[in-house]
Amino acid sequence: MKINGRPYRTIWPVGVDTVEVIDQTRLPHSFETAKLRSVDDAARAIKTMVVRGAPLIGATAAYGIALGMRVDSSDDALTRAHDTLLATRPTAVNLRWALTRMCDAVRNRPHGERAELAWREAATICDEDVAVCRSIGDYGLPLIRAAAEKKAGEPVNVLTHCNAGWLACVDWGTALAPIYRAHDEGIRVHVWADETRPRNQGASLTAYELGAHGVPHTILADNAGGHYMQYGQVDLCIVGTDRVTPNGDAANKIGTYLKALAARDNGVPFYVALPSSTIDWSLASGRDIPIEERSEDEVLKMTGRLASGGVATVEIAAPGSHAANPGFDVTPARLVSGFITERGICDATREGLASLFPGR
Amino acid sequence: MKINGRPYRTIWPVGVDTVEVIDQTRLPHSFETAKLRSVDDAARAIKTMVVRGAPLIGATAAYGIALGMRVDSSDDALTRAHDTLLATRPTAVNLRWALTRMCDAVRNRPHGERAELAWREAATICDEDVAVCRSIGDYGLPLIRAAAEKKAGEPVNVLTHCNAGWLACVDWGTALAPIYRAHDEGIRVHVWADETRPRNQGASLTAYELGAHGVPHTILADNAGGHYMQYGQVDLCIVGTDRVTPNGDAANKIGTYLKALAARDNGVPFYVALPSSTIDWSLASGRDIPIEERSEDEVLKMTGRLASGGVATVEIAAPGSHAANPGFDVTPARLVSGFITERGICDATREGLASLFPGR
Repeated sequence: MKINGRPYRTIWPVGVDTVEVIDQTRLPHSFETAKLRSVDDAARAIKTMVVRGAPLIGATAAYGIALGMRVDSSDDALTRAHDTLLATRPTAVNLRWALTRMCDAVRNRPHGERAELAWREAATICDEDVAVCRSIGDYGLPLIRAAAEKKAGEPVNVLTHCNAGWLACVDWGTALAPIYRAHDEGIRVHVWADETRPRNQGASLTAYELGAHGVPHTILADNAGGHYMQYGQVDLCIVGTDRVTPNGDAANKIGTYLKALAARDNGVPFYVALPSSTIDWSLASGRDIPIEERSEDEVLKMTGRLASGGVATVEIAAPGSHAANPGFDVTPARLVSGFITERGICDATREGLASLFPGR
Repeated sequence: MKINGRPYRTIWPVGVDTVEVIDQTRLPHSFETAKLRSVDDAARAIKTMVVRGAPLIGATAAYGIALGMRVDSSDDALTRAHDTLLATRPTAVNLRWALTRMCDAVRNRPHGERAELAWREAATICDEDVAVCRSIGDYGLPLIRAAAEKKAGEPVNVLTHCNAGWLACVDWGTALAPIYRAHDEGIRVHVWADETRPRNQGASLTAYELGAHGVPHTILADNAGGHYMQYGQVDLCIVGTDRVTPNGDAANKIGTYLKALAARDNGVPFYVALPSSTIDWSLASGRDIPIEERSEDEVLKMTGRLASGGVATVEIAAPGSHAANPGFDVTPARLVSGFITERGICDATREGLASLFPGR
């Protein structure tokens, strides 16, 4: 998608030994990129959320393996790189999926070919992610079109939580892909962007990328979405996910569950958009998904722009008080209206997923 | 309650023509008080949230009338003071209740007595609020004691939203009164304090006053409470309210509804604590409660302490994006386990309220 009229992906190769990414810890206050040159660079970028979003985490990890193979293409180095990258974030399953795919692509191949094979495989993962997200947009678009037909020219109001836009992926996004498609088709769509405390990915990243693309949107405190649903001001919810289990449970950014409850209570459809790489076929239910506990500083401090220019971090809570900071929650399948995937929309059930992915 | 070992109320008279209040816009970054000397001072203090919380708004408005009567005790001046103060905040009904009571106390009385009568009535309103809140604590205490008996020595985890502590009242608080009583009795109680965006009254005021009194507590992003309820880590929710309708609906700080939904979904009792002055007998249901729409700046900016000392305000959202900021939402009666009032606990129903307040 575009920033200031220039098309970007979130990650791209520079030559054959460097990968460049948009530094998402700087957004929305400044637009900067970062160069990754090693496994450790890639791991650090994931860990510190220079890159974030389940699909982009997978893509970055893939390039991390490729960067590692340039230096040392041994089996030991491959295993070390895999383990280092896997340890960065516990909740998103795309990370493991991408690492497994990279290892499968290079293991048992001649050492002299591994670096090049890995580099190409990482690029393929990125290109495939773009195609998959585009396809999610194709399948989600009719949901927005149908809502628009009921609104008689009024904008369709879509609520989303956190950032599952193109900044969370390589391009297009998951939850936002149908919105971009609808907007580009001339359907009037307005997005309620949950600010998504504590890291504010909604107020910073979702608002930023929607604004850059010209999509009307309004930021809400996470507390406000239920109220707007009670008053009929939300037509549809679409969120992303970091891991879906085969029974239809979906882990996503903390607070997603509360919006799903409000949607159910008010008859608002609640869709989860995902590439199939987000499905963890190995788990029984959402209870088995590890929930990352993050630093209390994310709750107790806030970073922003000073009126004088410059960026500062302020402590916002009562001095001496502590915070807990679970990064994700699990929305039970019963609250999900459907999954929007690259193969179509299905029920959030074992049968629904099996209908689209019969091989699993 | 105490701050640094010294007992405080939130509002107190100084001589006969000045009222002093804790400036809650400065908390938790610094402890300052403000002096109110006129109707306009009182109105401004309410409007700018120097004082906030339904009971304290009522108490401040009462003193506002009294300050006005010192200057001009005419019927016209009384009406003007009433109207000015009533216009400050639309959602809390205690404001109207206190203003009506003040007008009733002085109208039809000799002009020469009005100032003194008003001063005494405002003081009585404050003293009564303290007694009422103490009583709410008495009636709520057994809920926490019963939960403690099931926990076999583990702390009872109580989740609260926004600040309905002593800082929201004259002393003791509403939702926090049972917690202070339990803590003072030696019952192990731990509070999950929702930070309560956008103004963060939970992270600033609730955490501040609990910390000052020594009550164990942990701040949560508003998004996190549902997750902790899913994992059995919340035994009880107690919140305050700004207006209750006779059918049992309760308006409270934006986001309360989401927590009530999560409590219901996880079998967690959800209580609303209130003085009966918060009941608006004139309305049919929560749909009739006006919901205050506040400035988008509260969502887009955040104030805190710089590492270098000093307090700064930073812009936290994407430049150019706008926000919506409804101040309250309405939790429907069906989600409320009960009302904790100064006369006891009742069902959140017309019959429940009538059983405690048969005169209405």
